[in-house]
Amino acid sequence: VRADHPSYGGRHHLPTLGVIGGGQLARMTIQAASRLGVPSRLLAAPGEEAAPALAPAVTWAPLDDTDALHRFAAGCDVVTFDHERVCPDAVAALEAAGAAVRPGSAALRFADKAHQRSVLGEHVPVPLHSVVTGRELAGLGSATDLVVKPARGGYDGKGVHVVTEPGQLRALAATGADDDRYVVEQHLAIEQELAVLVVRSAGGEVATYPAVETRQVDGTCHEVLTPARVDPAVQVEAVRVARRVADVVGAVGVLAVELFVIDGQVLLNEVAPRPHNSGHLTIEAAATSQFENHVRAVLGWPLGPTGLLAPAAAMVNVLGPADGSDPRHRLAAALRVGGTHVHLYGKAPAPRRKLGHVTALAPTVSEALRRARLAGDLLTHTSTPAPVLQGALG
Amino acid sequence: VRADHPSYGGRHHLPTLGVIGGGQLARMTIQAASRLGVPSRLLAAPGEEAAPALAPAVTWAPLDDTDALHRFAAGCDVVTFDHERVCPDAVAALEAAGAAVRPGSAALRFADKAHQRSVLGEHVPVPLHSVVTGRELAGLGSATDLVVKPARGGYDGKGVHVVTEPGQLRALAATGADDDRYVVEQHLAIEQELAVLVVRSAGGEVATYPAVETRQVDGTCHEVLTPARVDPAVQVEAVRVARRVADVVGAVGVLAVELFVIDGQVLLNEVAPRPHNSGHLTIEAAATSQFENHVRAVLGWPLGPTGLLAPAAAMVNVLGPADGSDPRHRLAAALRVGGTHVHLYGKAPAPRRKLGHVTALAPTVSEALRRARLAGDLLTHTSTPAPVLQGALG
Repeated sequence: VRADHPSYGGRHHLPTLGVIGGGQLARMTIQAASRLGVPSRLLAAPGEEAAPALAPAVTWAPLDDTDALHRFAAGCDVVTFDHERVCPDAVAALEAAGAAVRPGSAALRFADKAHQRSVLGEHVPVPLHSVVTGRELAGLGSATDLVVKPARGGYDGKGVHVVTEPGQLRALAATGADDDRYVVEQHLAIEQELAVLVVRSAGGEVATYPAVETRQVDGTCHEVLTPARVDPAVQVEAVRVARRVADVVGAVGVLAVELFVIDGQVLLNEVAPRPHNSGHLTIEAAATSQFENHVRAVLGWPLGPTGLLAPAAAMVNVLGPADGSDPRHRLAAALRVGGTHVHLYGKAPAPRRKLGHVTALAPTVSEALRRARLAGDLLTHTSTPAPVLQGALG
Repeated sequence: VRADHPSYGGRHHLPTLGVIGGGQLARMTIQAASRLGVPSRLLAAPGEEAAPALAPAVTWAPLDDTDALHRFAAGCDVVTFDHERVCPDAVAALEAAGAAVRPGSAALRFADKAHQRSVLGEHVPVPLHSVVTGRELAGLGSATDLVVKPARGGYDGKGVHVVTEPGQLRALAATGADDDRYVVEQHLAIEQELAVLVVRSAGGEVATYPAVETRQVDGTCHEVLTPARVDPAVQVEAVRVARRVADVVGAVGVLAVELFVIDGQVLLNEVAPRPHNSGHLTIEAAATSQFENHVRAVLGWPLGPTGLLAPAAAMVNVLGPADGSDPRHRLAAALRVGGTHVHLYGKAPAPRRKLGHVTALAPTVSEALRRARLAGDLLTHTSTPAPVLQGALG
């Protein structure tokens, strides 16, 4: 800071962005910040790989090391997250110490699914549900046709349990403590799942991306299509519900709102106060990516436009193959598929681990999906793929 | 490398990309490599800022430290460059030691403008020219209406001298040694300047981007427009000349071919065997960026499609303001302009130093240029800009 120059000094200080969490969301957030010339720092937990590989300044600390969190926040102007697994009380302590944490502790409390259901259910339609303790869950005995989610720790759909067999509930309750809380819902016949990203800036501006269609495999978002193939009225209602949710949560930055469509009605599934897998296709398909808009929002800068740049786009996750092989070794084959953008996160392979994603832009959703799947298959299939000619696909 | 697994081992080794030179071209090349999950290493000269800020592994060494070059190359599978200022003999020594250097020493010899003119002039139209020594240049005395370029070191147009006053030639010759070589050309009435990027992969594939229109200020590329506003016949001829040049140069990777249009004829101006300022708009405006295609090409992987994703695009460089102020401090104002993508390189400001660029996509070239200039002006003007409303600019 050169205080002797009129355009320098406190008011014109170049902000440093701190990112807590070292996964692929942090990686892509740091990439977006670096394009804007915004310096960033990273606090990563030991073992995290995706973001540390390209962050210029890395602090290594476990997420529950509150002293490390405080020292890290003191070196940043704004602190944000790549996940919602940080304890909201620890974040509240950072705020009390004067740190600008975005989203803040109030928004991070919505990582608790029981909190989501009870607070947001008063404002938008949600599935029929109950919040129960582990003891109560065991007491439900042989009930079936339910969906059970632990209130905490269900990151990335991994904590969603569909109960179809008698005894499953008791077995599930036995994996946790008696006073753990669970959300129990009726197992619904879901027609479609949608996601809407809402961005709220520290300055009060709000922007929404068009609703995308998400397809889950084993409870995890696996494919994303845009525009979502829904009635215009559903598209409008999805955005309306998402904006209402964002107002209630009060998050600064990107908030991902996952929705169910049942009988043409839009119901809230879950929210995540951060950039989200359902928004990765915005990197190439939208006028401003979710990561750039997250950076803009938390720094209090104007948001960028969220419209699509192509008639259609699709994203397919690259999951670690069952044989433990590394998709990076098949990159050359996948790059033969024209019109696709391959993102690999620099993570060691493990079966079903999210190692990357492929986005395709195309004139139609089905063509975009075909291309993204083809490149994804070439990255993850261990059998030698049939030759793919650029001319046929370009 | 896990040799016990069939898809690992030598054939499937994940290549490490080495980049020599630490400027913005290296920065954007490393960003493109990291998106693909390709690990990179950087050799930067002391004082370089743009690429070291985000490179995961940096070796600091002056460019003429041949021992450092050899040690660096030994740790990489493929070595490439962000500029052509490395001595071709030093590169030839790396090649002799077994390093895969792309482009190679033969292509890097074309950084010498006298070599360019004499070799390429046999294959494509070039301006009338002579190659002279410093002694001969001084002897030309009071001649005017000439353009003089030192054979070496004229990076980024900085070495282009338009001679309009008697005595200028003598003064210019006095700045160098008697046996320095210069290219002397007639000062032409240039209608337009174009640039065509050609990509040649290590596997023999060739791709070209559509010709773009470049606008120079003080001999430096300042604005780039695509599609170039030229007759279709000129567009075709520009691409034909560029491909011929690329074949003669034999470069692997991106080769930038700068062209003059005079009386509807296409003449070769200069070539640079690397990604180029005229191709920065490909990051957002093309199906595959010049940086990703450079990475693919030097690693021997299939090239990506080069078509435009928008009807038109424009790029404007962000040069350091005369008062030494830092455009990063005006980023929030510039981000109000819709439809633009701001890139800042993390470099300390200095008057006229290239600190970043802005790309805009729009329905027309003139609208794209208007938006890119507006955002560029907001970044570089020290006067308080008039308020810009997002609604008015989309």
